[in-house]
Amino acid sequence: MRMLDIIIKKRNKKTLTQEEFNFVAQGAAQGSVPDYQLSSFLMACFLNPLSDKEAAMLTKAMAHSGGRLDFSAVNLPKVDKHSTGGVGDGISLALAPLVACGGVAVPMMSGRGLGHTGGTLDKLESMQNFEVRVPVNLIYRQIKKLNVCMFGQTKDLAPADRKLYSLRDASGSVESRPLIVASILSKKYAEGVDSLLMDVKYGSGAFMQKLEDSRKLARALVATAKQLGLKCRALITYMDQPLGRAIGNANEMRQAIEILKGDKTLAPDFYELLIEEAAQMLVISGKMRDLKKARALMEEKIGNGEAVAKLREMIKWQGASPKAVDEPETYFKNAKLTAIFQAPMSGYVQHIDAKTAGVAAVQLGAGRNTMEDAIDYGAGIWLEKKVGDAVKKGDTIAILYASDKKRLADGLELFAQAVKVGKQKPIGYKIVKEIIS
Amino acid sequence: MRMLDIIIKKRNKKTLTQEEFNFVAQGAAQGSVPDYQLSSFLMACFLNPLSDKEAAMLTKAMAHSGGRLDFSAVNLPKVDKHSTGGVGDGISLALAPLVACGGVAVPMMSGRGLGHTGGTLDKLESMQNFEVRVPVNLIYRQIKKLNVCMFGQTKDLAPADRKLYSLRDASGSVESRPLIVASILSKKYAEGVDSLLMDVKYGSGAFMQKLEDSRKLARALVATAKQLGLKCRALITYMDQPLGRAIGNANEMRQAIEILKGDKTLAPDFYELLIEEAAQMLVISGKMRDLKKARALMEEKIGNGEAVAKLREMIKWQGASPKAVDEPETYFKNAKLTAIFQAPMSGYVQHIDAKTAGVAAVQLGAGRNTMEDAIDYGAGIWLEKKVGDAVKKGDTIAILYASDKKRLADGLELFAQAVKVGKQKPIGYKIVKEIIS
Repeated sequence: MRMLDIIIKKRNKKTLTQEEFNFVAQGAAQGSVPDYQLSSFLMACFLNPLSDKEAAMLTKAMAHSGGRLDFSAVNLPKVDKHSTGGVGDGISLALAPLVACGGVAVPMMSGRGLGHTGGTLDKLESMQNFEVRVPVNLIYRQIKKLNVCMFGQTKDLAPADRKLYSLRDASGSVESRPLIVASILSKKYAEGVDSLLMDVKYGSGAFMQKLEDSRKLARALVATAKQLGLKCRALITYMDQPLGRAIGNANEMRQAIEILKGDKTLAPDFYELLIEEAAQMLVISGKMRDLKKARALMEEKIGNGEAVAKLREMIKWQGASPKAVDEPETYFKNAKLTAIFQAPMSGYVQHIDAKTAGVAAVQLGAGRNTMEDAIDYGAGIWLEKKVGDAVKKGDTIAILYASDKKRLADGLELFAQAVKVGKQKPIGYKIVKEIIS
Repeated sequence: MRMLDIIIKKRNKKTLTQEEFNFVAQGAAQGSVPDYQLSSFLMACFLNPLSDKEAAMLTKAMAHSGGRLDFSAVNLPKVDKHSTGGVGDGISLALAPLVACGGVAVPMMSGRGLGHTGGTLDKLESMQNFEVRVPVNLIYRQIKKLNVCMFGQTKDLAPADRKLYSLRDASGSVESRPLIVASILSKKYAEGVDSLLMDVKYGSGAFMQKLEDSRKLARALVATAKQLGLKCRALITYMDQPLGRAIGNANEMRQAIEILKGDKTLAPDFYELLIEEAAQMLVISGKMRDLKKARALMEEKIGNGEAVAKLREMIKWQGASPKAVDEPETYFKNAKLTAIFQAPMSGYVQHIDAKTAGVAAVQLGAGRNTMEDAIDYGAGIWLEKKVGDAVKKGDTIAILYASDKKRLADGLELFAQAVKVGKQKPIGYKIVKEIIS
């Protein structure tokens, strides 16, 4: 088998076989196929998109390109969630420990932020010494003891995805649904879970802006996950304004802690999505049958303090101080400089554009433009008001944090473009728009 | 300017600018753009083909990616020919010295054979010590003295093409008309000629099998060459059976010498194409106005021995022995083992498939399957009969030469599939089908 023939076959719109996808994935994982052939292949796949069947074959090939975590010694359902990414989407920080309280194992492999969307690993690392590079034997031990571990992709898990994703990013073939599906699911498969909840976002801050595109991605993810033997369901959720009130790493970590401590009103959209996702995970994992009962159990685990205790344990196990949970107000430090964005008129907050707010947060120092950029954990935005809230002229809509005057000024200028205040009260929206299974 | 943005622009079917093509060509020439981005770009150009205007811009960018030979000190028209390649197409070997006798300068930069088509440099190197890596100052000196020099591409001439061509070859984007046009013309531009004859072949042994595809390529080449300031005309010529009687390196060199010595009947199709191309070159270069007179002059230069004397001089200048010209029968040695392909019935030779005959010659040892393969200069095929010839059962149609029994047997088996003998006399064809200017 020759890579050149495989490239030409796909270029000529022919259907590839499982053996050919295996050859590509192994070649990517082992370095036996040169980058210039892989990138040419990826562009051919972008412009002559893979069929659903081919996407499933590529996913399988990539999923099997390295090792897979083996939780057969853990006698519990193994479940995880994946979000396609958004602004203020720190759900995972609260979700993983919460769901673990429901009697399922949650080995959650996460990534870093790039561009306007944040990354779970960065948010966790806003806690000093929190270790995301967890060796496999320690992941096993922690899951056995705590039911939950949050960690970064290791070299051995889905190595084909690591190579192909970085090439797609550098050579212009990122936005292809079949390639996205293969990338997401090959990683999640390697985690060793048996069920998976997908949070597919739509709206300005999402990877897919249009609802219809998100639907198509959700359907492809669910169908392909099932072909890999994973139980899977997808929620299509709203990302036209930022989720919750916090944008930025320490900011989002603190918000997650306050909510796990029982503050239901701090960020109602965040709380609702957290409970729904946690309950869905219990249901798709087979742990519970009734979604309402699962929701009630999850609310109970927050109310009785079990969830925040689980998070506290996890933080201790992974090397950071439990003070993060005990005294979040003093533990998490905002960046020194602040700016207030005030309502320019009385009326209603009609829109806070998620993408623009995310870009503003990156400008403040909360994110990366390239993988080499350093992150300012204390930089970010706190939304005092959300879409639909009534405001009077001069009311604080948001507080911006940065360590640098120029960044603060630039971030504020950008953020101002995200907000629209008007006389009319905007129509509401559902945080969970649809469920696809 | 970022390569990633250029890739995505072309991927999204947007039109690129001259500055963007310059960035790509410079990046390829200087190594500042990584191969995986170039190959992804080339695949995007393959699947979203460049417009004529874009092809011209890419050609310009590639043509200017390195140095250009400067023959301003030579007070003659500078003219060259390029063939899209075929089987038995050793025209250049006789053409360059012949045209030089017409009072024009012929700096001819040629390439090597790959697959079923031969390469001029390999044919020249069938003469021991013939040097094709000629330093620029020696090219200038030889052109000044002899009007002719035949040499290989140097590092400094069209370096972007060298990089991009090898990437296209390795990553599946060869057969794209705009990319072919840019590759051919950027090299020929760098030679420093002011006029250019294109021999665009069609038929089984040609790069383009269909007449209509050859026409499109010829039109694109002529139009784009004019945009580079080159006078240009294209002949569309027949390559459904091999040209002439010789296939293989020493074989073709010897045939060219015999024809320059005045043997008009040895290979009439070769002779006709030689005279036509030589005369066309004198006309497009502006040296002569009347094609008929130019043809007559070229026939005269063969008849009076000037042309073969010019070849003899060139061979001496470039390091090989003039015995090649003086005693070709003893100088050029065929490979030791021979096989005869006989007419299986009486009738007419209806077809000798050029592609199959070319592949058979490679099998015999005359060509390369990869650039690393060594060439057996004495291996090849001599066609005693050509399409249209009457044969009796058992007549020799071809003699095959190889140095190895296995190669000989495999080559014969392949060649047998190329030949069709039948009762009916096939209809004739014109060697020059059309002229596009």
